[in-house]
Parts: sequence; structure tokens; C-alpha cells
Amino acid sequence: MLNYPTLSDIREAAQRIKPYVKTTPVLTCAGLDRIIGARLFFKCENFQKVGAFKFRGATSAVFSMPEEEVVKGVATHSSGNHGAALALAARNRGVKAFVVMPKTSLKAKRAAVAGYGAEITFCEPTLKSRETTLARVIEETGAVFIHPYNDYRIIAGQGTAALELLEEIADLDVVMAPIGGGGLMSGTALTVSELSPKAKIIGAEPEGADDAYRSIQEGRIVPSVNPRTICDGLLTSLGDKTFPIIRERVEQIITVSDEAIVSAMRHIWERMKIVIEPSAAVPFGALLESKIDLKGKRIGIIISGGNVDLERLPWLPMNRE
Amino acid sequence: MLNYPTLSDIREAAQRIKPYVKTTPVLTCAGLDRIIGARLFFKCENFQKVGAFKFRGATSAVFSMPEEEVVKGVATHSSGNHGAALALAARNRGVKAFVVMPKTSLKAKRAAVAGYGAEITFCEPTLKSRETTLARVIEETGAVFIHPYNDYRIIAGQGTAALELLEEIADLDVVMAPIGGGGLMSGTALTVSELSPKAKIIGAEPEGADDAYRSIQEGRIVPSVNPRTICDGLLTSLGDKTFPIIRERVEQIITVSDEAIVSAMRHIWERMKIVIEPSAAVPFGALLESKIDLKGKRIGIIISGGNVDLERLPWLPMNRE
Repeated sequence: MLNYPTLSDIREAAQRIKPYVKTTPVLTCAGLDRIIGARLFFKCENFQKVGAFKFRGATSAVFSMPEEEVVKGVATHSSGNHGAALALAARNRGVKAFVVMPKTSLKAKRAAVAGYGAEITFCEPTLKSRETTLARVIEETGAVFIHPYNDYRIIAGQGTAALELLEEIADLDVVMAPIGGGGLMSGTALTVSELSPKAKIIGAEPEGADDAYRSIQEGRIVPSVNPRTICDGLLTSLGDKTFPIIRERVEQIITVSDEAIVSAMRHIWERMKIVIEPSAAVPFGALLESKIDLKGKRIGIIISGGNVDLERLPWLPMNRE
Repeated sequence: MLNYPTLSDIREAAQRIKPYVKTTPVLTCAGLDRIIGARLFFKCENFQKVGAFKFRGATSAVFSMPEEEVVKGVATHSSGNHGAALALAARNRGVKAFVVMPKTSLKAKRAAVAGYGAEITFCEPTLKSRETTLARVIEETGAVFIHPYNDYRIIAGQGTAALELLEEIADLDVVMAPIGGGGLMSGTALTVSELSPKAKIIGAEPEGADDAYRSIQEGRIVPSVNPRTICDGLLTSLGDKTFPIIRERVEQIITVSDEAIVSAMRHIWERMKIVIEPSAAVPFGALLESKIDLKGKRIGIIISGGNVDLERLPWLPMNRE
């Protein structure tokens, strides 16, 4: 038995991050309920600071460290949201943040990381370049590495979104979240399985980045190799801390086509009037594609983030492949 | 002294519409507060059913009539939001809705009106064609005409958005709303002036459709002739019921350039992660353009609606003039 965060660890994380994070609203939409034939409750982490749930985990990690451990700053690699989240968490703690980003990362995400005062070091968009660049940055600065998801302090922080959802909405039959590296999914699964054991926990993943699905099938971490999806937040592989939690606590992982993800994203923009990023649309995409029959159920969905480049919306002809 | 709706009329409207409308959230955004140097509270009527505050007024009007008056249905002319709102209100009441729309109205708005079960009759995009077409529809059907704004039942309904805002957020120094025909502005002004008499009431209008501004300057209703603005919801002239309320209760009307409106709209999408239509961005545009100094104030802003064509966003190069 591994040393997972317990519900009490997640509650502690919630207390620790409370002064810094937003309690995001849970929105509903009669039009989308009608389309799916279920009652949907969207926990809107796109309204979270830095525009994504990642700020919960980053704040949880940065504020759980004693002063002497964090004084030289924190460092990470990130294609975007975790970098911005760590940058703001570090600024709130009064320490420096160093973020290694691939040159190919979205303009909006780069601007956000820089805007929160982090020092960015660009690398090639390969695992190797990212790792060597980060190692160099850490050696030069003495900053402490905060992994985007393979860290129990991060996982406990991400679990606080589901905690708020369950505290606000009673009797959910199902809770869904997208899976990238598995930080949000792990935290969500720990919270829901402890607090609402009868609720079914379902993960959703792009077909073109289905490493979590395959990892569960094969019973080992299958790395994400050359993932091909519009969901820039879901390209990473599971870690040795997130995989066991997901294997133990997530009942089902559904893979979703990019076409359904774009359609889901557009449905949510049009009907709910909220801006969400493609990664956040994957669970609703699974419902829209009827990959699972949840008719009549009460379904909580974690909307993971809302950081998109408004110049490049995927349904516009010029951006279609 | 005209027979304006009183605060008690507005409270009655709130009770009447309660089973049908959403209590919309009030959202805040630290990033936008920082840009403006004030504390902003956005009352999100873009999340209202049919995507706009108009559903409050339409529901108020449709449900205030006795059965025998409404039994043959309701009719109106509308470039979009009021038509959709009346259609859904009529469906909720179990009667027909007939909506006259200009051929040039936005695809998304036409689809919404039809989707709520209204019968659409298209007309030329001129005042004359609209009026003759509507007269014919009313003669043929026996439906009762519900004006989009020049109607006290509508005005009282629109005032319920500000009522919810003031009930949720204490001590606002300023309340702002956009002005088209003046229904939302009148209702807002009546509510705020009665309930929070120390708060300053400010209207905002596109420069290219500044008929309300000029009407107040000249002390008479100056019709909106060939308005030229991106705000398709704010093209109409004040009516003889909205003009006196605005003259008496609105302290200031600020005109805003379309450039600032588009920039405001984009700021709100990017920072707040909500979808709003250009008309809804006008008050924030006034702040962004520094047309008025409200530094340090607590400002309530009614976000009027969120119905946009997601294929034609105004900041994309192909849609710029």
C-alpha cells in the first residue's frame, strides 16, 4: 500500500491554499442536460487563478515547504498551465520561479508565465531537451523542482476542486475529469472515493494521447509517445505516483476523438457562455460521443482550464487540419 | 410624474419570473481589477437563459397577462435576443410566439428563436418593413404585441438583474449598464436609485449609436439613424417610457469607440473566461478607455448577454474592417 494523500491531507491542502485560490462556481446548463439526457454539474476551474486547476496543486506544494527549503525558489518544466500556476504561487510566497518551456508552447501561455514574474528558459520540444535544460537551471539557481503532477502535494491540491464540488452538490452518481499526467484525475479520484464512495469515477482522454487508457489495460505505465491531439494540456505520461491511484480508484477511462472534443468545446462555449480549453472539453466529449450511457444520472465534470489562444479557435476553417 | 415601475413592482416581477429565470452569478477578476484600478463585480446575464437579460423582461411581461389576453400568443420584432427570450417565455406559458426578424440578423440568433419554437417572419432591415410586417402578423394571428423595451412590465423584469446584484454585493459605489432601447438601463436605474440611492448610475453606449447620449443632451428622444457599431444589440432608439426614466435616474452616459468595445470584449474573454457579446462589453470599454475616473471604487457592471457567432469573432483579421 502506497502512501497516498488521504482525505485529511486533501482537507489540509484546502486550508493551506484557501487564502490564495478562488472557490470556483459550479455551473449548470439546461440545454446541455437535454442533449445528454443527464444532469450535469460543471466545476469551473477555467475561472481559477491562472485559468486552470493547476494553481491549486502549485499553491499546495509551494506553501507546504519550510522556508529554508523554498528560499532559493522553485523550478519546473511545463507546456503552460503548471508553469503559470507555479509562477504565481511562488510570487505569493515571495520566492523566485524558474520555468522551462518548449519553444513551441502557446503564445498566451508563455505570456502568462512571464506575466507572473517567472524566469523562462526555452528548450526544444523533446523530453530530453526539457530534462537537460531543467537540470541545468536547477544546478545554476539552487531552486527546488516541483513536478507538474507526480508529487503528492500537487495531487492533494488538485483534489480540492472535487472537494468543493462535492461540498456544493449532493448525491452525484458520477464524477469525470480529463487525464494528462494524472494529477487532476488522481486528486479527484482520492477525494471522490473517500467522500462519496458510491459515485462512479471516470477519466477521459484524447484518442491520440491514450497512454493512461493503455497503461491501465497493460497494468504498467505506458509512456505517451508522439501524442497527436488538439489537447495541449494532456500530452504527458502518467507518473509512478499518479498511475497506482488511477489504477486503484478510477473505474473507467474513456478515449475521445479530437472531432468530438472540438465539438464539445464549441457546445460549451455556445451554450454555457464560458471559455474552456480543448483539454477541459474531453469529459463532455465522451458524453457527446455517447461513449458511455449515463442517461438520467447526476454527473459532476471538472472543467480543467480556459487558456486558449483566441486567435486560433479550432472550429475556424483556417485552423482545421 | 409618470407611472414608473416602483421597487415593489420590480420585486413583484422578481417573484413572478423566479420559477423560470436563472439567478446568475456575480463574477470578479483580480486581473481586470488591476488594469482598471477599481473593484469590479460582473453580473453575468450572459449565463441567463437564452443568453441574455432579455429573458427576464419577456418572462415578466408574458406571465403578467391574464389568460384571455395571452391565449392567441405573443408577437414582437427583434434582431435577436428579445425574440429568443419571448419565444421561450411563451413556450413556458404554453402559448405561441411570433417573431419578426430582419433577414440580416445573426445566424446564431435566428437559430435560437426557431429553437425555442417561435414562428419567424423575415423582413427587410428597415424600420418600415419591420413595422408593416409585424402589423400584418398581429392582424393575422391575434397575438398580443410585446415591445422589446418600451413596456413597464419589460422594464420591471430587466430591473431584477440589478436587484440580484445589489442583494449579493453590498456597498457598490457605481452601477453600469449598456444602453440600446433603454430597457435594461431603465430597470437597472429604477432598482439602484431606490435600493442604493448613494450609488452612481452610469450608462454606456457605442459612439456609433449614441442616440441616448444625444437624447439626454437635447432633452428629447433623438432617434437612432443609421447607427454604425459592432454592437448589434444596441442599435435601437429610446422609447417614450425608457427616455424619462433614464433622464431622471441615470447620472451620466459615456460613449465608447468600437475599438475599445472589441478590446474590452477580448479582455473579458481572455481574463474572465466568459463569452460575452459586443453590446455587453460597452461599460467595461468605457473604463478601459479611461472615459471616466473611478479609481478605487466598487463598480457593478451588468453583462447583458453572450450571444455571438463563434465563427466571426471581431478580433480575427478576416473580420476586421
